[in-house]
Amino acid sequence: MTVRVAVAGASGYAGGELLRLLSSHPAVGIGALTAHSSAGRPLGTVQPQLPEFADRILLDTSAASLRGHDVVFLALPHGQSGALAAELEPGTLVVDCGADFRLRDAAAWERFYGSAHAGTWPYGLPELPGARAELKGATRIAVPGCYPTAVTLALFPAYAAHLVEPEAVIVAASGTSGAGRALKTHLLGTEVMGSMSPYGVGGGHRHTPEIAQNLSRTAGADVTVSFTPTLAPMPRGILATCSARLSPAAEALAEDDVRAVFEAAYADRPFVRLLPPGQWPTTAAVLGSNTAQVQIAVDPHARRLICVSAIDNLTKGTAGGAVQSMNIALGLPERLGLPMNGVAP
Amino acid sequence: MTVRVAVAGASGYAGGELLRLLSSHPAVGIGALTAHSSAGRPLGTVQPQLPEFADRILLDTSAASLRGHDVVFLALPHGQSGALAAELEPGTLVVDCGADFRLRDAAAWERFYGSAHAGTWPYGLPELPGARAELKGATRIAVPGCYPTAVTLALFPAYAAHLVEPEAVIVAASGTSGAGRALKTHLLGTEVMGSMSPYGVGGGHRHTPEIAQNLSRTAGADVTVSFTPTLAPMPRGILATCSARLSPAAEALAEDDVRAVFEAAYADRPFVRLLPPGQWPTTAAVLGSNTAQVQIAVDPHARRLICVSAIDNLTKGTAGGAVQSMNIALGLPERLGLPMNGVAP
Amino acid sequence: MTVRVAVAGASGYAGGELLRLLSSHPAVGIGALTAHSSAGRPLGTVQPQLPEFADRILLDTSAASLRGHDVVFLALPHGQSGALAAELEPGTLVVDCGADFRLRDAAAWERFYGSAHAGTWPYGLPELPGARAELKGATRIAVPGCYPTAVTLALFPAYAAHLVEPEAVIVAASGTSGAGRALKTHLLGTEVMGSMSPYGVGGGHRHTPEIAQNLSRTAGADVTVSFTPTLAPMPRGILATCSARLSPAAEALAEDDVRAVFEAAYADRPFVRLLPPGQWPTTAAVLGSNTAQVQIAVDPHARRLICVSAIDNLTKGTAGGAVQSMNIALGLPERLGLPMNGVAP
Amino acid sequence: MTVRVAVAGASGYAGGELLRLLSSHPAVGIGALTAHSSAGRPLGTVQPQLPEFADRILLDTSAASLRGHDVVFLALPHGQSGALAAELEPGTLVVDCGADFRLRDAAAWERFYGSAHAGTWPYGLPELPGARAELKGATRIAVPGCYPTAVTLALFPAYAAHLVEPEAVIVAASGTSGAGRALKTHLLGTEVMGSMSPYGVGGGHRHTPEIAQNLSRTAGADVTVSFTPTLAPMPRGILATCSARLSPAAEALAEDDVRAVFEAAYADRPFVRLLPPGQWPTTAAVLGSNTAQVQIAVDPHARRLICVSAIDNLTKGTAGGAVQSMNIALGLPERLGLPMNGVAP
Repeated sequence: MTVRVAVAGASGYAGGELLRLLSSHPAVGIGALTAHSSAGRPLGTVQPQLPEFADRILLDTSAASLRGHDVVFLALPHGQSGALAAELEPGTLVVDCGADFRLRDAAAWERFYGSAHAGTWPYGLPELPGARAELKGATRIAVPGCYPTAVTLALFPAYAAHLVEPEAVIVAASGTSGAGRALKTHLLGTEVMGSMSPYGVGGGHRHTPEIAQNLSRTAGADVTVSFTPTLAPMPRGILATCSARLSPAAEALAEDDVRAVFEAAYADRPFVRLLPPGQWPTTAAVLGSNTAQVQIAVDPHARRLICVSAIDNLTKGTAGGAVQSMNIALGLPERLGLPMNGVAP
Repeated sequence: MTVRVAVAGASGYAGGELLRLLSSHPAVGIGALTAHSSAGRPLGTVQPQLPEFADRILLDTSAASLRGHDVVFLALPHGQSGALAAELEPGTLVVDCGADFRLRDAAAWERFYGSAHAGTWPYGLPELPGARAELKGATRIAVPGCYPTAVTLALFPAYAAHLVEPEAVIVAASGTSGAGRALKTHLLGTEVMGSMSPYGVGGGHRHTPEIAQNLSRTAGADVTVSFTPTLAPMPRGILATCSARLSPAAEALAEDDVRAVFEAAYADRPFVRLLPPGQWPTTAAVLGSNTAQVQIAVDPHARRLICVSAIDNLTKGTAGGAVQSMNIALGLPERLGLPMNGVAP
Repeated sequence: MTVRVAVAGASGYAGGELLRLLSSHPAVGIGALTAHSSAGRPLGTVQPQLPEFADRILLDTSAASLRGHDVVFLALPHGQSGALAAELEPGTLVVDCGADFRLRDAAAWERFYGSAHAGTWPYGLPELPGARAELKGATRIAVPGCYPTAVTLALFPAYAAHLVEPEAVIVAASGTSGAGRALKTHLLGTEVMGSMSPYGVGGGHRHTPEIAQNLSRTAGADVTVSFTPTLAPMPRGILATCSARLSPAAEALAEDDVRAVFEAAYADRPFVRLLPPGQWPTTAAVLGSNTAQVQIAVDPHARRLICVSAIDNLTKGTAGGAVQSMNIALGLPERLGLPMNGVAP
Repeated sequence: MTVRVAVAGASGYAGGELLRLLSSHPAVGIGALTAHSSAGRPLGTVQPQLPEFADRILLDTSAASLRGHDVVFLALPHGQSGALAAELEPGTLVVDCGADFRLRDAAAWERFYGSAHAGTWPYGLPELPGARAELKGATRIAVPGCYPTAVTLALFPAYAAHLVEPEAVIVAASGTSGAGRALKTHLLGTEVMGSMSPYGVGGGHRHTPEIAQNLSRTAGADVTVSFTPTLAPMPRGILATCSARLSPAAEALAEDDVRAVFEAAYADRPFVRLLPPGQWPTTAAVLGSNTAQVQIAVDPHARRLICVSAIDNLTKGTAGGAVQSMNIALGLPERLGLPMNGVAP
């Protein structure tokens, strides 16, 4: 069986990573590759790391280009996915790496994105309790944001088991590819190298409601999220440091008991790796892989549980997560074509 | 007037930065430079960035080498400063960049450092309320740790004005020079570049009690600190993201009122710069300078105040703070010889 | 068919990269993994990027550990390979990533390595004219050095076609992983980041005679090499800038004719990619891939041909080249299990 | 005496570095700061590293803004300096950091820049033989390009003493700030970090004729230059690796004799530091300083002299060189206000 796949937005960072992963996926054949301003150019001029597709000419991003495929990945700016998907054949699996269909709360969407809510699609984070059942056979998938992926994987066991109180404090560092290929002065190498800086402080980042949605669904109660993203001098990777007050019941637990909760929660999640005690996540170790490294610690003095995760924002945080969800939707083995090992050092 | 200055530990990162600053300090003459394993070698072989002192031979670190100076800076591993200082002339100003004399609580010292408490010296963070009076004329100064400097400058106005509750959550990213010149695999460039990772998670970092001490003294009440340091792929710089629950009184304040509290607190602190609204600290902007950049935000949804600061860990975080304290102790202008402008981009 | 493979030196950078590649090689099964000082530890503690092998216990590096495999990769310090290989079964394919068996000239070996010459094995650079025939069926292979790989791929077409005079000037920049995991102060992240520096200047680098050997064999005449390696602030990658005076015959050629010579030379080398005119190699584009990017230019004023190549020093420059040679030796497809696409950005 | 200074182009990287240096120059008072698209904004929004000038409003770049100063520094795109300088008072010292007045050969200018040659001003590289006499009392100064500064300082002693043949091969690595603040995709941090790449290969870089001019004037004969610049993953710094065939006379010299030639040539050049034997330049060691580190080696096998230099492209390579030339022109001590020590690590 060969699944015929198209990628819309193949000239961007997420599109390039999708192609890298799909090129070694044994069940996939690559069809149309589309772009906006780079349409008409060979892919090799914008994605020099992909010699296998160097001579492929980028088509324009349109339904005409994208029809006739089994799966269409959308790696587009938000706001475009709904109309495009509506023009494709009904049975096509559309996997949207953008934000349009992630949120369930229309008011939250409108507050953070400033436009009308397009709807909600099955959420492509297979590790969340219940998610796989929803993804199996789906024809529409909303791939999670990169920060929500890192944070949710780190914290969902704690909220599922009610180990912590419903106020999470999260500080995450992201490599610059998370900002995409947009030309902005503060993203120039000259300004970025040697520099850490925060942005979207005070609750303004658009991933905040998505994180809150995931944690609240898991907890079965409203979880308030304080989320501060920071830009780190590296091309890829997210390190999410997440903490919350221990619940009264959890304060009585030994750290090993807390640990056992996480081990159980991750038991059949092959892409989440709870590190052995004493070892901490590094973004370098997950570069190019679909693995999330997680480690936890209980701070008895501050009475908080600290959960730290590391992912590659373009792989598990975007393209790898998208392929993993595709696998589940199509009934393929969840791990098919996805690297677990990172490119390090 | 020329103050004759010696530097013990001149072969390390803090020692090198002290020499860079002191070389352009108009009231200072450089005397003995000492080292441990590099004793006998010319400074140029270990500090190639300091051609002005390239031919100076490093002496061994001993009282015999260090006697006869007006000021002696100690940039040594902890545990050595007390005995060395006791052998110097009584009137010598000893400025210790190490940890030995920072903590007031002997039990906290013993818990975090595993040795007997040496005592407490005047604390060289001149921006803390009351600190300058204590430093003026002092002959012993304990220079703060780099993380406590960044965190305390960001948070002390909030605790002084009781804007927040006494549970602070801090995630800070540090450049690798904070770990010193020790040879450890995880500090190799190959492992560090492109990588973020946490360490000392769960309250174990030795700067935790020092941060708590500073905030508690400012608040006049016990402040609990959850502190997670992370290692960032850059040589220098600390970005500290600090937050706490707004106090009930503060929840009623407009963000401008909160801002006014910080402006007032920093009014006569020339090295602390509260950035204009909308601008956020970057470690790049403070490289090589004694400036701390600070910005704040109120998150009304999470009901937290987020305070972010950026410093150069070797300048304001160590050597610059040490020189600033020396200036005050000797009655010199606080800013003398200290750069406010950073080396950027 | 499954080839049973052992890796000696699995705790180092080359060993880790071998395991990453071999883990997705469809014809390979991973057997013994050995190390020196890390023997007895689980691989996950030293190679956290390889969760698939995290629980494998590292054996000691000895013939006893390595016997019973079809292929043994040696990623060891030079001087150890010969004795170890001699103790393995005669039919075992031994692929040595070290230097011991690369040079044909015993005098050159002794001058650059200061020890007795161990011998010469078939040279694992399949792109060199005649190399594949020598590798097919071989049971001993000497994997080239990383710099010689980058330089030879860039220059061999020019020497094979006598386009240039026999004096090559080469300046190459390498990522720090080329120096291995040794603990040296100048390899600390703090010292490396933001810094470029040369080393082994004046002909002293041990890869110099290997480069000269490759170019001389191709030219059929002695080629003199001026080689200056530099250390660049990146974990991986080599950029080799190679040039030589145009031969009188070549001066008369149009640049397109020169280009045609390179196109012909690379025609059946799937891992060498001559970029389209106007596009230049970047080390980022080949990260984690077995591809070498090459571009050339004629400088009519200086009368020189400049050939620039980019490789990943750990992949095409070491582990990927080793696997490629193994494929040929065993009669497998040359590209089997080897990524052509890089991990970028 | 206070020299009143204006900076045109204060919003760019060179302009920012000029301000950093001038802010601690004891004989300078800062007057007008001008910009193009940032005119009307406070400097702090574009140069956050300069809190001392944060509230200064940027004027538009025009003669009206710049008149009435003793010295005007121009840090502008090429093509603008001549007309602007003509409108200033005749006695004003105009120091142009741009390229317009560097070349003596109008034909070379036209070939490389594609516009009419504006003329030639005294060349602000005080270390070149005869340069100081020309700069003393000058009212117009052309500051050298950053690459020509690094290369000329490394090679001029060899050409002045006829140690090498008139064909120089140069490969230089530059930090990204050399490309300015222009928004280009290949300068994004995401693309730059972890990557080395060449550009302007084959003699096309505009600094090529300037390098040839400097070396030819020194040699008293035409020197042909093969120059390949590369972009390195660091914000600042140039490492220039320069070599040429030894002349027949020089081949007979011992390396110590060659070294003595360089020592003599650098004798009264306080900003050029020939490192002790065995120590090699690093760009990290000169960060933020006006120092050029140089080291040399003779390769007896390749019969070449290799000269390597490291500078900070924005300091000695632009703004520091400009201030140094200003000092000489005005009769101030050459070193006044210029740091010799670098900011490292």
